[in-house]
Amino acid sequence: MSLIVQKYGGSSVADAESIKRVAKRIVETRKAGNEVVVVVSAMGDTTDELMDLANEVVPQPDGRELDMLLTAGERIAMALLAMAIKSLGLDARSYTGSQAGMITDARHGSARIVDVTPDRVRAALDDGAVAIVAGFQGFNRGTGDITTLGRGGSDTTAVALAAALGADVCEIYTDVDGIFTADPRVVPAARKIDRISSEEMLELAAAGAKVLYIRAVEYARRHGVTLHVRSSFNNHEGTLVLNSLDGENTVEEPLIAGIAADLSEAKITVVGVPDIPGKAAQIFTIVAGANANIDMIVQNVSAASTGRTDISFTLPKADGAAVLAILEAEKANVGFDALEYDDQIGKLALVGAGMRTNAGVSAKLFTALFEAGINIEMISTSEIRISVVTRADTINEAVRVVHHAFGLDAETEAVVHGGTGR
Amino acid sequence: MSLIVQKYGGSSVADAESIKRVAKRIVETRKAGNEVVVVVSAMGDTTDELMDLANEVVPQPDGRELDMLLTAGERIAMALLAMAIKSLGLDARSYTGSQAGMITDARHGSARIVDVTPDRVRAALDDGAVAIVAGFQGFNRGTGDITTLGRGGSDTTAVALAAALGADVCEIYTDVDGIFTADPRVVPAARKIDRISSEEMLELAAAGAKVLYIRAVEYARRHGVTLHVRSSFNNHEGTLVLNSLDGENTVEEPLIAGIAADLSEAKITVVGVPDIPGKAAQIFTIVAGANANIDMIVQNVSAASTGRTDISFTLPKADGAAVLAILEAEKANVGFDALEYDDQIGKLALVGAGMRTNAGVSAKLFTALFEAGINIEMISTSEIRISVVTRADTINEAVRVVHHAFGLDAETEAVVHGGTGR
Repeated sequence: MSLIVQKYGGSSVADAESIKRVAKRIVETRKAGNEVVVVVSAMGDTTDELMDLANEVVPQPDGRELDMLLTAGERIAMALLAMAIKSLGLDARSYTGSQAGMITDARHGSARIVDVTPDRVRAALDDGAVAIVAGFQGFNRGTGDITTLGRGGSDTTAVALAAALGADVCEIYTDVDGIFTADPRVVPAARKIDRISSEEMLELAAAGAKVLYIRAVEYARRHGVTLHVRSSFNNHEGTLVLNSLDGENTVEEPLIAGIAADLSEAKITVVGVPDIPGKAAQIFTIVAGANANIDMIVQNVSAASTGRTDISFTLPKADGAAVLAILEAEKANVGFDALEYDDQIGKLALVGAGMRTNAGVSAKLFTALFEAGINIEMISTSEIRISVVTRADTINEAVRVVHHAFGLDAETEAVVHGGTGR
Repeated sequence: MSLIVQKYGGSSVADAESIKRVAKRIVETRKAGNEVVVVVSAMGDTTDELMDLANEVVPQPDGRELDMLLTAGERIAMALLAMAIKSLGLDARSYTGSQAGMITDARHGSARIVDVTPDRVRAALDDGAVAIVAGFQGFNRGTGDITTLGRGGSDTTAVALAAALGADVCEIYTDVDGIFTADPRVVPAARKIDRISSEEMLELAAAGAKVLYIRAVEYARRHGVTLHVRSSFNNHEGTLVLNSLDGENTVEEPLIAGIAADLSEAKITVVGVPDIPGKAAQIFTIVAGANANIDMIVQNVSAASTGRTDISFTLPKADGAAVLAILEAEKANVGFDALEYDDQIGKLALVGAGMRTNAGVSAKLFTALFEAGINIEMISTSEIRISVVTRADTINEAVRVVHHAFGLDAETEAVVHGGTGR
């Protein structure tokens, strides 16, 4: 008997019909002889609607109360799903994050899981019942208060439960068939990836692939949880995210796992920085004060005539204003000339464990972009990833030509459903 | 410093604007130097909408899961209310029934309170905060499951908290100005009652007055809680429900407190019952098997020629079919001739502690109805109440003529808002 954790996002439980459909799938999984734990997000746009309601009452809602409010969403979805399963003749019991033992720190809106004690979930399984657990929410022991895990919280709930229960697999149900070699909306010839290493998945998620949240992938990697990303609209096999592809024939391991694009970042250039030791450290210590998530950093070669250089870095557009302000305040201390802000950039990342042993990947990437007339503004590399920054309006074309250049195009076009879950 | 428990029904917190209005009232009460505990129902029609959603998924939702679902409603309202209060500069913390220590038995949908341990509520008050508690919901220690208290549950939550915290008063906010001598929609000259004994209030609530639930009044009476029923739309004094009117000038105690009417009942007549001892006991033992709430019972004088009699009783229309079926199944055992069912009845109840010492009340009541041409079909009396059954279509006229006959009419007409809370 296998223990399977299934996570259904908001688009999979958007209305009563969807809930009944998902209930049938769960019942089939249980009847096939598996123990089943289900993690569910709030229905459709419920979370956004609750947030709108909060903002109607007060522009800046209190964190504790916002968590209390938003957790109503999963509560509704999980109770309805449990009812639907029971009406199909199986026992099912829904549990809040607190009842399921999702113990977190006290950071409202972005709590971290500190312990998972799923005793009631385990007991429900032992009784032969399906356990339904509210995603996205937890409980702080010190304050006794309800918390939420922030973006991607339901994925994280599912992975954390899978780890604590020693599940055989954690299935992440979504509205696409799995992880693709590129966004099928941009590259119609994108192929579904059957297997990917968690290392590659982490790089893809970090580079902007939306299907899985980096935090859930990290948690799965750290705790040895196998993820299976698949569609709730059909029974196709999706993408297995494995902690190791050992045992796979590494000779046939594809060079490139996939391509991700990200239009959510901006570039700040600090112009005319004195080219003396310690200046970069000084700048990024200042930037860290704004809690911004800095991604790529490039320092130009110093102009010998001036003894000055330029330092550019990318960061989420949402953090742009705060970082500009904090740097401007330290302009005299650092001694730079000016700040430039550019929010019209696009970032393309090519990810693949195979590139570790293949020196020609960068050259092939740059050539493909050059031949398409796309200018590269920044480059950064890790062991299994190459990222480049281009103009925002060329990013989709860039993804297509690179996808083609690396032989990733499929024979047929992918089918795409709309929407994303939480 | 007084400790005040305030309960706001769904119509008082129907939307963001109402929530802000209620928040202001709470802040005023706190700033006047009182400790304030607020019990809140779900917003407007939220509970009905959640119930509809459940019925879309499954016709007969599971009790445990229905409670899990419905409790999301108060959770939303209380979090929004706490946010609104905090935005006005006061500390406020919302608590679920479970967090507030509302311990119940395990009867889903109609749980009874078995213990109240409001430690967190008390701690919040000690910190100077306003405590907001979800009405209608509790927690069973044995199962660890969430429960709901059923109809009038939020009133009961408020009264139970007031009792456990030793509150000075429990204010029940609604959309009318208090308890009236009759329903102002039926009798425009109805007067607001300033003070009423809990004994009278119990009889009025039992007789169909909708503003307060009998269960909350019973709880208040048993635990010595003073209730103040008032409008959330103005600052008028409402109706004080006192456990004793001692200290009042009993000479001036009004003969009649008020009149209630009820169109929700039906009448069953068991025709041709053998007039031998034990038959009534047999019939009502059978009826008890259907868990119906029997109200008035009348046994006709036996016809000497046949040795048979008729027994009539009233019960909620909703229970009619079940009771008819259970009686019909025992027809041979009991030996009656036939069953008659009549759902076109109306019940009028005249309530007043003063009638205890006044023999003329019944005569005055019957005379008033006779003069208006209204036929009385059943009569039942308690120490402080007289109830009569008439045709349903004469009940409003009956209430008006009785209201007038007992000198209850006010000089001016009452102002009526729409809707009722939970």
